[in-house]
Amino acid sequence: MTAVADDPTTTSSITTSPGTPPLDVAALLDARVPGRPLAQPFYTSPEIFELDLAAVFGRSWIFVANEAEIREPGDFVTVEIGAWSVIVVRDDDEQVRAWHNVCRHRGARVLTDRVGSVGNIVCGYHKWTYGTDGALLHAGQQPRDFDRSCLGLKPVHVRSVAGLIHICLADEPPADFEDVATRLEPYLLPHRLSQAKVAATEDIVENGNWKLVMENNRECYHCDGHPELSCSLFPTYGYDEADVPPLLRPAFDRYLAADADLQRVCGELGLPFARLEELDERPSGFRAQREPLDGAGESFTPDGRAVCRKRLGDLPEARLGRLSMHHQPNTWLHVLSDHAVTFTALPLSADRTLVRTTWLVHEDAVEGEDYDLDALTDTWRQTNLQDATFVARAQLGVSSPAYEPGPYTLSEYQVEKFCTWYLDRLREQVAR
Amino acid sequence: MTAVADDPTTTSSITTSPGTPPLDVAALLDARVPGRPLAQPFYTSPEIFELDLAAVFGRSWIFVANEAEIREPGDFVTVEIGAWSVIVVRDDDEQVRAWHNVCRHRGARVLTDRVGSVGNIVCGYHKWTYGTDGALLHAGQQPRDFDRSCLGLKPVHVRSVAGLIHICLADEPPADFEDVATRLEPYLLPHRLSQAKVAATEDIVENGNWKLVMENNRECYHCDGHPELSCSLFPTYGYDEADVPPLLRPAFDRYLAADADLQRVCGELGLPFARLEELDERPSGFRAQREPLDGAGESFTPDGRAVCRKRLGDLPEARLGRLSMHHQPNTWLHVLSDHAVTFTALPLSADRTLVRTTWLVHEDAVEGEDYDLDALTDTWRQTNLQDATFVARAQLGVSSPAYEPGPYTLSEYQVEKFCTWYLDRLREQVAR
Amino acid sequence: MTAVADDPTTTSSITTSPGTPPLDVAALLDARVPGRPLAQPFYTSPEIFELDLAAVFGRSWIFVANEAEIREPGDFVTVEIGAWSVIVVRDDDEQVRAWHNVCRHRGARVLTDRVGSVGNIVCGYHKWTYGTDGALLHAGQQPRDFDRSCLGLKPVHVRSVAGLIHICLADEPPADFEDVATRLEPYLLPHRLSQAKVAATEDIVENGNWKLVMENNRECYHCDGHPELSCSLFPTYGYDEADVPPLLRPAFDRYLAADADLQRVCGELGLPFARLEELDERPSGFRAQREPLDGAGESFTPDGRAVCRKRLGDLPEARLGRLSMHHQPNTWLHVLSDHAVTFTALPLSADRTLVRTTWLVHEDAVEGEDYDLDALTDTWRQTNLQDATFVARAQLGVSSPAYEPGPYTLSEYQVEKFCTWYLDRLREQVAR
Repeated sequence: MTAVADDPTTTSSITTSPGTPPLDVAALLDARVPGRPLAQPFYTSPEIFELDLAAVFGRSWIFVANEAEIREPGDFVTVEIGAWSVIVVRDDDEQVRAWHNVCRHRGARVLTDRVGSVGNIVCGYHKWTYGTDGALLHAGQQPRDFDRSCLGLKPVHVRSVAGLIHICLADEPPADFEDVATRLEPYLLPHRLSQAKVAATEDIVENGNWKLVMENNRECYHCDGHPELSCSLFPTYGYDEADVPPLLRPAFDRYLAADADLQRVCGELGLPFARLEELDERPSGFRAQREPLDGAGESFTPDGRAVCRKRLGDLPEARLGRLSMHHQPNTWLHVLSDHAVTFTALPLSADRTLVRTTWLVHEDAVEGEDYDLDALTDTWRQTNLQDATFVARAQLGVSSPAYEPGPYTLSEYQVEKFCTWYLDRLREQVAR
Repeated sequence: MTAVADDPTTTSSITTSPGTPPLDVAALLDARVPGRPLAQPFYTSPEIFELDLAAVFGRSWIFVANEAEIREPGDFVTVEIGAWSVIVVRDDDEQVRAWHNVCRHRGARVLTDRVGSVGNIVCGYHKWTYGTDGALLHAGQQPRDFDRSCLGLKPVHVRSVAGLIHICLADEPPADFEDVATRLEPYLLPHRLSQAKVAATEDIVENGNWKLVMENNRECYHCDGHPELSCSLFPTYGYDEADVPPLLRPAFDRYLAADADLQRVCGELGLPFARLEELDERPSGFRAQREPLDGAGESFTPDGRAVCRKRLGDLPEARLGRLSMHHQPNTWLHVLSDHAVTFTALPLSADRTLVRTTWLVHEDAVEGEDYDLDALTDTWRQTNLQDATFVARAQLGVSSPAYEPGPYTLSEYQVEKFCTWYLDRLREQVAR
Repeated sequence: MTAVADDPTTTSSITTSPGTPPLDVAALLDARVPGRPLAQPFYTSPEIFELDLAAVFGRSWIFVANEAEIREPGDFVTVEIGAWSVIVVRDDDEQVRAWHNVCRHRGARVLTDRVGSVGNIVCGYHKWTYGTDGALLHAGQQPRDFDRSCLGLKPVHVRSVAGLIHICLADEPPADFEDVATRLEPYLLPHRLSQAKVAATEDIVENGNWKLVMENNRECYHCDGHPELSCSLFPTYGYDEADVPPLLRPAFDRYLAADADLQRVCGELGLPFARLEELDERPSGFRAQREPLDGAGESFTPDGRAVCRKRLGDLPEARLGRLSMHHQPNTWLHVLSDHAVTFTALPLSADRTLVRTTWLVHEDAVEGEDYDLDALTDTWRQTNLQDATFVARAQLGVSSPAYEPGPYTLSEYQVEKFCTWYLDRLREQVAR
């Protein structure tokens, strides 16, 4: 009778002797078993959490906001990634800029609101004043020889992909992102997200490591637990032609017909349809796919009908299924004919993660006339809460000394690819 | 004038130089002064807290529940010990089983309720389904060659002692427990606790290290602070014949008479009476004693009268005093003629401990008819809260750099034995 | 484009590789750039927080209470400094004593109220009883040979400076404090603070490192953010004759006239006027200065008029400006003709600090008759809250990996001196 597995990778939270040397990350990386979740310390160790911030969030391109949130010059959002805080602002030349939200005087956080609009960027502590271009314009009570020129806000790399604003905190961002952006833009641009309107934003804190949030997102094996979302998904999600159980054959035929129909419509409208999937082969791992929705096939609603009367990009067809995209490490999103919904997971601590959801509609859509806000947001608000309970359950479980990673099913292949991608980032960091 | 003692054992929370090597537990163990409380780090250090989980809670037999809580097949309780979570369930063959509450798929916590009843044990995440015998019965979307047989829930050792369910998380549990169980059962079995009914359960969180909770429990030198409980205790508690102050002589004579009377009654009823006490001589340190109660001598009530009309085990006598038992590391309990009350202290962090109290009555006793719930639970609910303030006060005090362990009185000998037992467990662990 | 500065001092919270050696404080001390704030770890590292407690709060004289709070024998206050807790009590001989608030039995915190009055000092756990002189008077259930004489409460050094009670937790307090006390007393004694009455005490917790609280206090470059306080301060605060901008010349002339007037009045009343300032040259760094107030010049009110009709020390003049004092590491205070207000900053964790404010008035002043409590306390209650937002903003900002200390202005010279003083204390500690 073995009550606790004799597995060296599950001992991080319970050290059997004091004075244990610090976590040996290289050994943990070597010990990884493909096809199974990560070892316990990756989900629970504060040391690895800090490593994740440096190796993943400090080096990758991270989706942080929509251009739709900052339509006018001076509009800004602030975003926190670990201890970093970044101002994303539309400059007077209408370009999107990003600046470290840290005053060059004594380091105070400059802007404290999450969204807003400013003329200049003024630190609330000693009133040091910066332009939206980051330059220090004014600092009071300084001697005549004070040199403002080297005291501008520190820049952060920024790249908008068809309205999806990505930043990179590294000095040298991953060079492959330009290629990813170029390949994704034809999929996104017809929906004109950069001209959309923000209908709603919701932040929730999930009680789990950010990787458990992402692993949960990268599979639909648990989608029985999402009754509102499941209406729109074919019950055969995750099955290949060869594996479909006889009972699900009618549903699978319905899916095949809907998929063929969607492919035809996209062809007529010039919307790219081919699946792109390079999830773990590159630093900017990503995936994009158009997939039909079940029911009426228009939106994430109980009957599948559109919830907003105006269509993104004024496209002439309501039944466009969903354009779903994943970007490593922390993003997923869906673009439908009538609205889009974007998600970004931001790590707070080894066992807490903020998930920010943003709903976008046509810029002219009027709440109460063109769409009902509750109807628009209900499916994903419920789904997020359900996911939060799954993630909390996973965090509690993997924290047990008895936890031992078990086998993924075939339909969890994207979870495996997420883990592979993640571990490659850590290997790169450890090798630095 | 010496404001702070020059004592190497009191410096853990205030390091005088950075880069201090990790806590030297072996040196702390060597430095222990018998007859005094432990040095500060034992109560405050997160490192030693983790060591306690491994050396004490991960190796000893731990009382976690009453059989009365899981009378029917499928009834379960879950219990958390540090990061471990364990399902204690009555299997279809009516035996009590214990399983790690960790799904063999991706490690999710399987059952999240503290008590309940199930047919099978189904993980709420991806619906992996286990029998109450731990076997994996079903996992969806698996390939044909999927081998369920090695993916059952991991077992935990379990042993019920006359209805008191003990588990052990170690691969090899302490071998001496079988002997302890065998010696305790004759004391407990006549009260038929395994057929009792749970009248109430209460969890409180005390703001102190688990060892301060236990040390507080192991003496009655502070019992002036328990007015409700003190009614039932003779005021001479803690005194020997030789030490009784003249003022307490009448009370001591009353105690001697009650003790002789109780011994006579037990003899007539065949209830074992001899005191058993092996608190620090063995891994499964324990103590059992029948003692008379003051007043009417029947129960923990202001006048000493029974609070429940039906007697545990249908014994023919109400005036049975209390059968009090201690089991290292974390348990105490009292069995009276009309009810029993069990306690288990579960460590949450270096400075927080959960204390779970359970009141048991005869299985046929009806609330409102045979007993009043408030009257049944009042004494120990008040006593627990009083103890919580003592423990919090102790935690605050021993955290000061000025703390220096002082001398125990004679009536605190069980506290000393608790410390000795505990330090032996740490010595064993460090020597591993 | 450099998004994050390549600065070794900003990497503490984000370690780029696991197994990093502990913080190298000596290297951090060597790397300090004069004229700029401290590097990030000084504000965020729990290790340096513990070092601060040992090197600064465990060694310096710390202002903790006013004699006005303990006027009668048996009156006490308790104060927490890190994990220390100290009882400051007026003994039966009317002297102020200080004792570690730790029972010599099992280390319980003896007194748990912040203020109160006792006959003897009785531990609430096992009733060990001490005199206000610290001697152990009684401990129950002890053998005949029990020696109480070596089990008195442990003493803490204490020195009242004209009613301001300072304690020192070190075995050997800084010897220079006697000189500082002797030089400060002539400034303070005429206001008779030891005979004052406590009108109000307020504790707030600021979400920042204690040094950010102090740095914020040591400059008025941010005083635009204090509208209530600014009424009383000349708008030229921080300017020298040579630097006054033309627009502020009339205000500067007003200041010069008020200052000359105050100097004359002080001369007539025999109140010392010369500025004392030895902020970073000695262990007990301090500063004292009388300065005129703008407006009516009497008090911290919108129009500058006195808020209390009775004057401290019964001085014959209302227009006495403010006697402002700073004492390293954690104190500032202002004595006006009609009231005094004292401040002490007590570190709670690397990112939280308690600020205790006490308002004193003449012992015969009656609330509602001689003063309105809201009017008395409003300016500093508002100012404290404003400072709390500044400190929180600073804590958030300096926690960013992008933080880089920027240049102080001339008017921040006391901040620089605070940093210099602080770093000298750390150097002394590291050299020990």
